[in-house]
Amino acid sequence: MARINDHYLTLAGGYLFPEIGRRVRAFQDENPSAKLIRLGIGDVVLPIGASIRAAMHRAIDELGAEETFKGYGPDQGYDFLRDAIVEHDFKARGAAVAPDEVFVSDGSKCDSGNIQEIFSTAARVAVPDPVYPVYVDTNVMAGRSGAASEDGKYAGITYLPCTEKNGFRPAPPDEPVDVVYLCFPNNPTGAAATRADLERWVRWAKQHDAVLLYDAAYERYIRDPALPHSIYEIPGAREVALEFRSYSKLAGFTGLRCAYVVVPKEVVGKDAKGNAVGLHRLWSRRQSTKFNGASYPIQVGAAACYTDAGRGEVAASIDYYMENARLIRAGIAAAGLRVFGGENAPYAWIATPNGVGSWEMFDRLLLEAQVVCTPGAGFGACGEGYLRLSAFGKRDQVEEAIARVRKCLAG
Amino acid sequence: MARINDHYLTLAGGYLFPEIGRRVRAFQDENPSAKLIRLGIGDVVLPIGASIRAAMHRAIDELGAEETFKGYGPDQGYDFLRDAIVEHDFKARGAAVAPDEVFVSDGSKCDSGNIQEIFSTAARVAVPDPVYPVYVDTNVMAGRSGAASEDGKYAGITYLPCTEKNGFRPAPPDEPVDVVYLCFPNNPTGAAATRADLERWVRWAKQHDAVLLYDAAYERYIRDPALPHSIYEIPGAREVALEFRSYSKLAGFTGLRCAYVVVPKEVVGKDAKGNAVGLHRLWSRRQSTKFNGASYPIQVGAAACYTDAGRGEVAASIDYYMENARLIRAGIAAAGLRVFGGENAPYAWIATPNGVGSWEMFDRLLLEAQVVCTPGAGFGACGEGYLRLSAFGKRDQVEEAIARVRKCLAG
Repeated sequence: MARINDHYLTLAGGYLFPEIGRRVRAFQDENPSAKLIRLGIGDVVLPIGASIRAAMHRAIDELGAEETFKGYGPDQGYDFLRDAIVEHDFKARGAAVAPDEVFVSDGSKCDSGNIQEIFSTAARVAVPDPVYPVYVDTNVMAGRSGAASEDGKYAGITYLPCTEKNGFRPAPPDEPVDVVYLCFPNNPTGAAATRADLERWVRWAKQHDAVLLYDAAYERYIRDPALPHSIYEIPGAREVALEFRSYSKLAGFTGLRCAYVVVPKEVVGKDAKGNAVGLHRLWSRRQSTKFNGASYPIQVGAAACYTDAGRGEVAASIDYYMENARLIRAGIAAAGLRVFGGENAPYAWIATPNGVGSWEMFDRLLLEAQVVCTPGAGFGACGEGYLRLSAFGKRDQVEEAIARVRKCLAG
Repeated sequence: MARINDHYLTLAGGYLFPEIGRRVRAFQDENPSAKLIRLGIGDVVLPIGASIRAAMHRAIDELGAEETFKGYGPDQGYDFLRDAIVEHDFKARGAAVAPDEVFVSDGSKCDSGNIQEIFSTAARVAVPDPVYPVYVDTNVMAGRSGAASEDGKYAGITYLPCTEKNGFRPAPPDEPVDVVYLCFPNNPTGAAATRADLERWVRWAKQHDAVLLYDAAYERYIRDPALPHSIYEIPGAREVALEFRSYSKLAGFTGLRCAYVVVPKEVVGKDAKGNAVGLHRLWSRRQSTKFNGASYPIQVGAAACYTDAGRGEVAASIDYYMENARLIRAGIAAAGLRVFGGENAPYAWIATPNGVGSWEMFDRLLLEAQVVCTPGAGFGACGEGYLRLSAFGKRDQVEEAIARVRKCLAG
């Protein structure tokens, strides 16, 4: 028989969200009349804005006429989108990014999962704990780890504990690592990085010849004007950092699929002989060999997010979700629990009462309050004792969920 | 500095199509008034059918209303599409595939590039020569090869020569291999597999515990009613074969992006201890960790290809391209060249006059006839001395290209 990739068998349990899905389905099968409220997976609920839809309709019409039909697009994305990204997401904030450093894709899950391919399997990887599980899982699948311990930590991976003490903003590791995943505003803790935080990371990466993989999928939720939105607002970041962005949470594109990665031409790794090799060249080769570009109408929709009308639609949705976040914070705090995040991010991070285990608390909220949250332990060992509540819900549902959770906690 | 994946540096030259693109752009920069005809990359030119577009318009409208909005879809594709695939692409031909064995994606380039991840890096891979370059390149990037020789062959890869003598339908290898890529109707030779061919492959794979990766992206171009469209028409194939399908060439989706892989539950590999592991489980884990589903409106468009109206639109486009293929075959043969394929595939495979090198002939046709073809050597060493001409063009352009090529050859 063909030898399989044994590293897949190293993975502990299933991917977090399918596991949540299984538990929720089992509950529903037994309780078909229960009215579940889902603040778990962090999926958007508000419709796509009218001007963004209109742009996609026009794109589909273009594909219906010989003169305007488009087949394969550029693997790395259309210029109209790459130019708009550079202008609005970076230049407007004083950050220098060139259009050919922007690689448009069909999603940040793909990008943040695939990026590890360009590094050696011997590269040492550091991840915040807790964090979006894709970073760790994809490195385990590639063979950059040993086995998992009981609390879900893999040998060979460097974990950066995110705790109440450090404000969920971890310090650079003491041990040498090659690649560090960072995610700010953070999923799941909702913590946002300050300018000083990112300056420290960039300085450290330069000193230690490390590469930072900066996931800024939630940057649009930043409310504090003092906080940086892009790592490229920090001098020197172009030499050490890649940045991941997505339209999923920005404009409700979770079902449409569009995202991008920035790979500055200055960022280098080294080959076996010690020669510097630009990561831009490697990622370009990876994408042109294994990817055929994001869907044209969806790229047109993404570009429409930067028009005046599109920006208004995007801002209205984000304001709505952030009001949800405020209500969640206030409601949960009033119930006497410690709550973090939710001020510059769509996630509230909640300490369970009396340090109850997070899967136990997940089950309790599911059974007693019919509210689906995300157990903190699913994001890493340091997430144990916490829950994530997502602000991606309809207002009445969010209010009802808060009321139910409070009742459950009081009961 | 972070250690990079050195296997990327093993890759010889650029990916074929970007290289063609570079040469074409260089020619255009020097000859801005030249009227190029592109029969190179094999991209569709006919508009998307009206009923398929209408379905996508409706899907976008759904995303504009709270009641019908959809966020993340199932990672593996919506049931409405998986069910339609099973019914029309398999059941209708007597082939047994279950909906949960169908993994919908954003393209066959991704699928056929990513599939190797579930195998050990020690797995021995066989590929037809010539063939679609993604199979080889992605295995080289994963470290399953040594260096390339001068003719572009990598050490450690088993090549299956496709020659005029074997009708471009290679026999199974004598040496032991774990994984075999097959592509029928073939890109680039246009050869189609007979039932007997596939029966032989399935028998061989069972005998040798190998896995077949069967790329049927061009199955809709099969005209001969005796030829199988799916490998699952062959008894026993469910135990040894995965199959790749795409809407790109079927319905003009090259810019829209939708495809799928079938992974039957019976196909197994073995882990380091020799235990059997189902590939379905591995691919499912790969996709749920690194992929977030294909775009919803595009999946709706793909499903519309199976309605009566959609089937008519698809058939009309394919008839059009196949008439192009007939004209190319006839025209090139009349010019005295040996031409293959083009009868059950949208590609004609042409022996260069007097065995001229294929990149030399590519340059000659570009410079003298302003026709872009694909040099056979770009698909593998055995492609040397051949050219691929694609039937994906508008009729007047195809006719003009044939006339120009004939004039060039006569000159």
